[in-house]
Amino acid sequence: MSSSEQAAAPGRKLAHPAREEIRLEAVLHALADRVRLRIVCELADGHTDMACMTFGLPVSKSTSTHHFRVLREAGVIRQHYEGTSRMNRLRSDDLEVLFPGLLRAVLRAQRQSAPATP
Amino acid sequence: MSSSEQAAAPGRKLAHPAREEIRLEAVLHALADRVRLRIVCELADGHTDMACMTFGLPVSKSTSTHHFRVLREAGVIRQHYEGTSRMNRLRSDDLEVLFPGLLRAVLRAQRQSAPATP
Repeated sequence: MSSSEQAAAPGRKLAHPAREEIRLEAVLHALADRVRLRIVCELADGHTDMACMTFGLPVSKSTSTHHFRVLREAGVIRQHYEGTSRMNRLRSDDLEVLFPGLLRAVLRAQRQSAPATP
Repeated sequence: MSSSEQAAAPGRKLAHPAREEIRLEAVLHALADRVRLRIVCELADGHTDMACMTFGLPVSKSTSTHHFRVLREAGVIRQHYEGTSRMNRLRSDDLEVLFPGLLRAVLRAQRQSAPATP
């Protein structure tokens, strides 16, 4: 558990699987969606923590929240609060240790198949 | 379309997406399942066409048929009939052209996370 999670108020605690709890099927399921692939690509390109609201996704706020939750619960992203913003980062290191080359291959495939996302 | 498909009786024709119709999300969804990952690993290890019944999956026949259909419709495997047996092979070449390294990374991850499947 990260320090930001420990410091969060109880109602704002965000559950994350530990590295050893991350399952390949769950990661593949989390990535098997157009919107979630876009989120993952933008996080990979951004090289920094990004607030949910900065993605400009073509879905409602509740649907967007759902997609980020699927990614977090599968172990693909880590989320924490900064003020009222929910910030996101890819768990690239955890995924690379568990499934070497997988995230890179997915990102490359996604960029090839959807190169221009405005 | 393969020659075996063209020769099949109409009721036994099996639909496959052309290479350019294969979508990353559909492939990831097809792979996001324990039983389907096992099928894909066994096909990769077998290096030959394998009949559905040879896999010895821990599911009912209808569930097994469903899993093979999901893999076929996503473009992960190609199926054809030999007599009454439905034979399966991985579309490794198509997937490698479309999504370089993806199938290899998934197979490696699956073997690491579930090394012993009796």
